[in-house]
Amino acid sequence: MKQMVCDQSVKEAWEKFKKLDEKITHYSSVTALLDWDQKVMAPKKGRQSFSNAIGTLKTEEFKLMVSDEMRDVLSVLSSSDAIEYLDEKEIAQVRERKEFYDRSKSIPPKMYQEYAVLTAQANDSWEEARDKNDFSLFKPDLEKIVEYNKKFVEMYGYEHHPYDALLNQYEPGLTVEKLDPLFARLREKSIDLLQRIQQSTHQPPAEIFEQSFGVEKQKAFNRYLLPILGFDMKAGRLDETVHPFAQPINNKDVRITTRYQEKNVRAALFGTIHEAGHGIYEQNISDEFEGTALLTGASYGIHESQSRFLENMVGRSKEFWTFFYPKLQEYFPSQLGQVSEEDFYQAINIVKPTMIRVEADELTYNLHIMIRYEIEKGLIMGEIEVKDLPEIWNAKMKEYLGIVPKTASEGVLQDVHWSFGGLGYFPSYSLGNLYAAQLLNTIKKECPDFYHHIETANFTNIQTWLKTNIHQYGKLYTPNQLIIKTTGEELNTDYLVEYLENKYSKIYQL
Amino acid sequence: MKQMVCDQSVKEAWEKFKKLDEKITHYSSVTALLDWDQKVMAPKKGRQSFSNAIGTLKTEEFKLMVSDEMRDVLSVLSSSDAIEYLDEKEIAQVRERKEFYDRSKSIPPKMYQEYAVLTAQANDSWEEARDKNDFSLFKPDLEKIVEYNKKFVEMYGYEHHPYDALLNQYEPGLTVEKLDPLFARLREKSIDLLQRIQQSTHQPPAEIFEQSFGVEKQKAFNRYLLPILGFDMKAGRLDETVHPFAQPINNKDVRITTRYQEKNVRAALFGTIHEAGHGIYEQNISDEFEGTALLTGASYGIHESQSRFLENMVGRSKEFWTFFYPKLQEYFPSQLGQVSEEDFYQAINIVKPTMIRVEADELTYNLHIMIRYEIEKGLIMGEIEVKDLPEIWNAKMKEYLGIVPKTASEGVLQDVHWSFGGLGYFPSYSLGNLYAAQLLNTIKKECPDFYHHIETANFTNIQTWLKTNIHQYGKLYTPNQLIIKTTGEELNTDYLVEYLENKYSKIYQL
Repeated sequence: MKQMVCDQSVKEAWEKFKKLDEKITHYSSVTALLDWDQKVMAPKKGRQSFSNAIGTLKTEEFKLMVSDEMRDVLSVLSSSDAIEYLDEKEIAQVRERKEFYDRSKSIPPKMYQEYAVLTAQANDSWEEARDKNDFSLFKPDLEKIVEYNKKFVEMYGYEHHPYDALLNQYEPGLTVEKLDPLFARLREKSIDLLQRIQQSTHQPPAEIFEQSFGVEKQKAFNRYLLPILGFDMKAGRLDETVHPFAQPINNKDVRITTRYQEKNVRAALFGTIHEAGHGIYEQNISDEFEGTALLTGASYGIHESQSRFLENMVGRSKEFWTFFYPKLQEYFPSQLGQVSEEDFYQAINIVKPTMIRVEADELTYNLHIMIRYEIEKGLIMGEIEVKDLPEIWNAKMKEYLGIVPKTASEGVLQDVHWSFGGLGYFPSYSLGNLYAAQLLNTIKKECPDFYHHIETANFTNIQTWLKTNIHQYGKLYTPNQLIIKTTGEELNTDYLVEYLENKYSKIYQL
Repeated sequence: MKQMVCDQSVKEAWEKFKKLDEKITHYSSVTALLDWDQKVMAPKKGRQSFSNAIGTLKTEEFKLMVSDEMRDVLSVLSSSDAIEYLDEKEIAQVRERKEFYDRSKSIPPKMYQEYAVLTAQANDSWEEARDKNDFSLFKPDLEKIVEYNKKFVEMYGYEHHPYDALLNQYEPGLTVEKLDPLFARLREKSIDLLQRIQQSTHQPPAEIFEQSFGVEKQKAFNRYLLPILGFDMKAGRLDETVHPFAQPINNKDVRITTRYQEKNVRAALFGTIHEAGHGIYEQNISDEFEGTALLTGASYGIHESQSRFLENMVGRSKEFWTFFYPKLQEYFPSQLGQVSEEDFYQAINIVKPTMIRVEADELTYNLHIMIRYEIEKGLIMGEIEVKDLPEIWNAKMKEYLGIVPKTASEGVLQDVHWSFGGLGYFPSYSLGNLYAAQLLNTIKKECPDFYHHIETANFTNIQTWLKTNIHQYGKLYTPNQLIIKTTGEELNTDYLVEYLENKYSKIYQL
């Protein structure tokens, strides 16, 4: 609080707020840990009954966030008088809690708990449906989830488009109105580039990865790689799960997972670099945000920019492999001993439409996201019904990517997101790509030695730049404030389009 | 609730109680998981700041347990009128919460939180003191812990001896008045037997274990052994920690740990069997106690009886190794190929006073416990001061075991218990030995094929007996009720004395 004479009621409200804010943060880091544990550690039989305990904790957290006490302190602290007394960090703390309070205050805790239980169960029905390749097993739960979200949207409130209310949970301030043109331009440019790539007479050698790569060696390479990239193993963990993810508990306990497949060395390699990007972000948030809602990334889109930046702009660059390819060859002499660095570099950058989003290349990835974005908007507007999803999915795949899934498992059932109610989440992935390219443009200007650092595996300067400009701030700034502060302009598609055009023009000799 | 016309106020109180009871149980299983995670999984740097989150959760749990709502429903439900309407399980649920409420109601939540933080920090100061072999580093925290416990004892209340209040946290109903004669007789008989053993001309071959046993092979043997013993790996985990322990999250998620040392194959072998005993107990508690305080062992002593029974009465028996020794030889052909089964059996039962409690044999183990019991009583009565502990410890070691530690690390600093405030805990270990021997006497009568089952590694019948007589009941009965129900009499020392006498007479040819 600023060193000035301060109104007693503001002071009191602030003290109450600080305690409440910290308590909620404690609950959040506990529930984060519980979620991680159930995915990574908990034995199968114990999960069902533990989900009730998780439900209780999450509902307690929710109740604190929409409590009368929260309403009262927020009403004092968000008044124009009070703001005079608060510093930048304090204003942001109030902003975060107020945003959640305003959005969620109309949701009865009972409804929240029912939804929490539904989405916990839906994970099982989705998994079963995917395993048995039978959409009808997931349909009833998904219908309920969509219905809840339609109600939530009305309770959250929105100015223009109902979907804005969902988007805002993940990307504060983003609207359909802003997103539609960004995506339209990206789509147009991507499809044009994709066509030229597909028509090119030069095609990289794909067969490099049609070999077995021992899992123990893959693990060893990851353990070697992570600390060099800047991931602090004393402030984090690396575990294995079927669906890799990053879960921060606090900024000194950031847990990432990866998946090892003998027949798919790229999955663990780029998956680990990706999650390390998320992890390094969280590890470098300033300690001063401990015990507040600001101890996390600015938004899901900004978060994804950090993982995409490390995975693609760094990890799929030529310079990265100038250093690391000889190392990788040492780990896999029989598989890669005879493969040239150039062939390897081209092979990790092959562009080819795939059924599965997480296996997509940098170019077609965004088309997968647009399909989901269109469908989610349709569901919320009532223009699409859940029962028609498999058909609509396939039609959109045909339209955007020119391929059609043969099964629901490799189509509409491939992603976990809808089962946990994450409608509005998918756009974050493409926003991440857009942010990452815009940041790349700035960092190249501000660190002229950028590619030289990569080529020598000297990531200190790069991570320092990211820490200084992005990581340290946590959630202090909105994503829009942050990208303007760092790059000097609002988010736009030019940088990603230009990056993809340059990269693939060279690889595919366009 | 019994099917009879029931007073409306009792019905209402019961419904409120049930919800509150379940909520507290959810908090307990969450904090159990958090404790496990911090010991087994959490990266070093994250623990400090997460301890605040754990403190918040534990204090919330405490507040619920001593809340006015709890007071009000307990006052209705524990009235003689209300008890008419409750069944056995419901009465036990009320008993558990009432016992805690009555004991803890005078402790202000603020004091509870301060103590929780102190004991969290004291773990670090104890570890540092032990690592640096410097008692003075732990002394200030231990002094505070003892002072808190002196205050708690007055707040808890007691009838005869202040130490009873501490004992009762771990062994409901136990008093110094009951324990002193049990321990006195056990001590007298143990020292007599020890002297005869030390004077025997026959001494088992100790050098068998002075070899290296590969850690990977030890792990493989444990993975082979655990399911045969009856530990369900789909309802539990086995991990590694410096200090092995068992941590139930619920009855389908029971996590045990062990420690592998190349130079000490016995540590992991018997440590794992011991923790499996705890784990199997929890896994076999009836599902009907889910969401209540009864979903755990009857007491720490009864719990320890299950681990000691499996470790010693089963795992250190001749019959056990009749089956498993040839298996173990397959895992360690170069170390054990030339060692006879009889020599191996005698070597795992060597009696020799040791500095370290957890390395002690079945006979001298209880003497270690008595030393701690005497000291704790002295501390609580103000007859012993913390500053004098290293000296007093060494004097008692000399008196009870005839050996004197050279350093504080192998003396007064060896155990973690005081650092987490566990005064009153140690007697549970010897109670466990006493209960286990008494149960052995009964199971041998009721299952005449007991040793034949062990010899053929057929543990189903044995585990069924334990489940039927002990495990399934969880905390439904008090330890005293349970031992009488199962063995027909109160706990006494005869069975353990007789068991030790028989066993060692043969081994040492007395």
